Amino acid sequence: MALDDRSYEEVRTKAELAKKASKQVARLSAKERNNILLAQADALLAATDKILEANRLDVARAKEKGATSAFVDRLSLSEQRVRDMATGLVQVADLPDPLGVALRKWRLPNGLDIAQIRVPLGVVAVIYEGRPNVTVDVTGLCIKSGNAAVLRGSSDAIESNKALVDVLTEAGEAAGCPHGAIQLIHSVSRESARHLMRMTGLVDVLIPRGGAGLISTVVENSTVPVIETGIGNCHIYVDAMADLAKASKIVLNAKLQRPGVCNAVETLLVHSSVAEQFLPTICASLREAGVELRGCPRTRALVEGVAEATDEDWQTEYLDLILAIRVVDSLDEAIEHIERYGSHHSDAIVTQDYDAARRFADEVDSAAVYVNASTRFTDGFEWGFGAEIGISTQKLHARGPMALPELTTGKYVVLGDGQVRG
Amino acid sequence: MALDDRSYEEVRTKAELAKKASKQVARLSAKERNNILLAQADALLAATDKILEANRLDVARAKEKGATSAFVDRLSLSEQRVRDMATGLVQVADLPDPLGVALRKWRLPNGLDIAQIRVPLGVVAVIYEGRPNVTVDVTGLCIKSGNAAVLRGSSDAIESNKALVDVLTEAGEAAGCPHGAIQLIHSVSRESARHLMRMTGLVDVLIPRGGAGLISTVVENSTVPVIETGIGNCHIYVDAMADLAKASKIVLNAKLQRPGVCNAVETLLVHSSVAEQFLPTICASLREAGVELRGCPRTRALVEGVAEATDEDWQTEYLDLILAIRVVDSLDEAIEHIERYGSHHSDAIVTQDYDAARRFADEVDSAAVYVNASTRFTDGFEWGFGAEIGISTQKLHARGPMALPELTTGKYVVLGDGQVRG
Repeated sequence: MALDDRSYEEVRTKAELAKKASKQVARLSAKERNNILLAQADALLAATDKILEANRLDVARAKEKGATSAFVDRLSLSEQRVRDMATGLVQVADLPDPLGVALRKWRLPNGLDIAQIRVPLGVVAVIYEGRPNVTVDVTGLCIKSGNAAVLRGSSDAIESNKALVDVLTEAGEAAGCPHGAIQLIHSVSRESARHLMRMTGLVDVLIPRGGAGLISTVVENSTVPVIETGIGNCHIYVDAMADLAKASKIVLNAKLQRPGVCNAVETLLVHSSVAEQFLPTICASLREAGVELRGCPRTRALVEGVAEATDEDWQTEYLDLILAIRVVDSLDEAIEHIERYGSHHSDAIVTQDYDAARRFADEVDSAAVYVNASTRFTDGFEWGFGAEIGISTQKLHARGPMALPELTTGKYVVLGDGQVRG
Repeated sequence: MALDDRSYEEVRTKAELAKKASKQVARLSAKERNNILLAQADALLAATDKILEANRLDVARAKEKGATSAFVDRLSLSEQRVRDMATGLVQVADLPDPLGVALRKWRLPNGLDIAQIRVPLGVVAVIYEGRPNVTVDVTGLCIKSGNAAVLRGSSDAIESNKALVDVLTEAGEAAGCPHGAIQLIHSVSRESARHLMRMTGLVDVLIPRGGAGLISTVVENSTVPVIETGIGNCHIYVDAMADLAKASKIVLNAKLQRPGVCNAVETLLVHSSVAEQFLPTICASLREAGVELRGCPRTRALVEGVAEATDEDWQTEYLDLILAIRVVDSLDEAIEHIERYGSHHSDAIVTQDYDAARRFADEVDSAAVYVNASTRFTDGFEWGFGAEIGISTQKLHARGPMALPELTTGKYVVLGDGQVRG
């Protein structure tokens, strides 16, 4: 039997088990679901040594392969990080129950009562990269929202993920979690990911969490419903009427506070009437903080030593200490640039002009549009959702930060006493 | 240049034009959008002769090819049907505006104001079969909801569709509709449909309206977001505690009132404790109305001359005067059957038992679950939505009848005065 077939069997079997378990998870009460999360949090703390031991195997392998220190950092667990994962589960348990709410309810003239009730999606599958904490976060959010989870992590984190899922499963089942509700795919080949993308009828939604390559592979190959997440080629436009002190503070925050994440700014657009005043100062501050600058010809004429920005730069999510800069002659030109090159994630205008603020908010077609604030705020925790399973950059179902309600769907329940259609 | 390439060019060009126009449609006021629909309604009436002339070409071609009378009926227009299409546009114009509403709005402790605003999806593409009225319905719903439309109808209706889109475009643009907002694909090959399924970044949602073959081709091949519609393998379960008079009325209505549509019943499940009393009578009534019956062995033992139902029967959406019948021993068995063979569209229980009603409503995983009412009610008009672009059988974004709100998405607008993330 080919490797391909073996991974198909594993994915198929686990997706079927998850589907079966999902019916039972959906029927647990909120209290039962919360108790599972609390038991899992305790078990993670109790199993810290076992988890760290497994994680050391992954980290050693990554180092042998010459992984970057940023990569190793994301992969590495510590006592503190295990505690953080456990705390995360407790926090999710404390959130309001998203299920059972009537989204709308009305009575027809013929006496039929119609209610649209919030219910779990069923089976939520996630394909993700080398961060073991995602394993725990996704499991907690899925169980809390009444779903079963199918986890396809990266080969780099496989030992850590196995150890975590063992602990979560054992403690969860002891606390009443239906058998099969948490499935980890052990074959971490490309094939297993592709099989998961085609489990139509078994996987209700597939959420890819990772880089542009993973997202586009999933969009290209999936037959199951997908929610695209995370690519953030974010812009800040400093308008002719900007408060330049605010602009400076916002640009520095959006580039420097955490450059490796999706809501960091990647391109700065500056109106030509303030470029001469704004660019030399902001560029000096950015360089001082270690940012490499790439600019259009007008930027390069104003600031010495800026490399030439190519069309590829405008399209790139650097996730690094690099910033592209372009001088534009109007709000229209700024909006056009964002619509052409952006990823519809988070984009900001800095302006004191009421009309410019309103037009930017209306016309920029992104999940989050900011006026006079840092793009870094696009985040389920910052916005008070209490959790986040990803940031959707698509328009169907969920757009922007996704938390518990985005892991549910509506179902119409219609109660009658013998009505038929005339 | 191959035919394939020509249709690619057409689809690509029209999708790009629609995308460009969609930005302008989104900025029209509700009054402007309504005026376009009213002008289009008037123009349809004024162009009745031209439309009927074009339709005669389609109908003649269909008859030459030996199409069934049901097919020819769906394809045929008449003065009355043109009037109905115009009335439909006026009714949609009269519906409340779905745009601009804040779905939620809150202020963060740091002073940021966040609002989730309802905005258009952008470009809505629809692939559909030989009903010319869909051309008008979809155009009206798209313009009303601030979207541009890309229409890929069937070759059977191409002359009718061209005439309709000519009228809608000319009258629409004269009333202020942005140029390019209504795009009809003239190449009606399979290739043009496949190209449309892959216009990632240009098509914001693709809705297939048609039979099982079309839906599965779209799900299999699309890279753009899809909403699955319409396959309805619907069930009625007559419980041990059913009021059999109600059951009889509901079953006859759900099978006979309009057998060719997705919310008609296809399989009847009957609890064994009432089968002997219920089945002979209902089967006699169904047969009298011309219904062909296919049953499980226990059904066949109770009612003479019923053909044997195969596994394929349980899976089939007949859309015809055929009914599959199965005797089950419990509510669990009924739910299991529905979950295994159903299409998660509309399923009903007939019972006077409170617990059975509650369990059926909770555990059957369908877009609409009925207690003591006909499945035929699943319909945007019946439910008071005033319009319908299809009935979704998937769980993401929209589930059940889809009207104007389902053609929109949320967008977060965040207003600050210089906030940065700490």
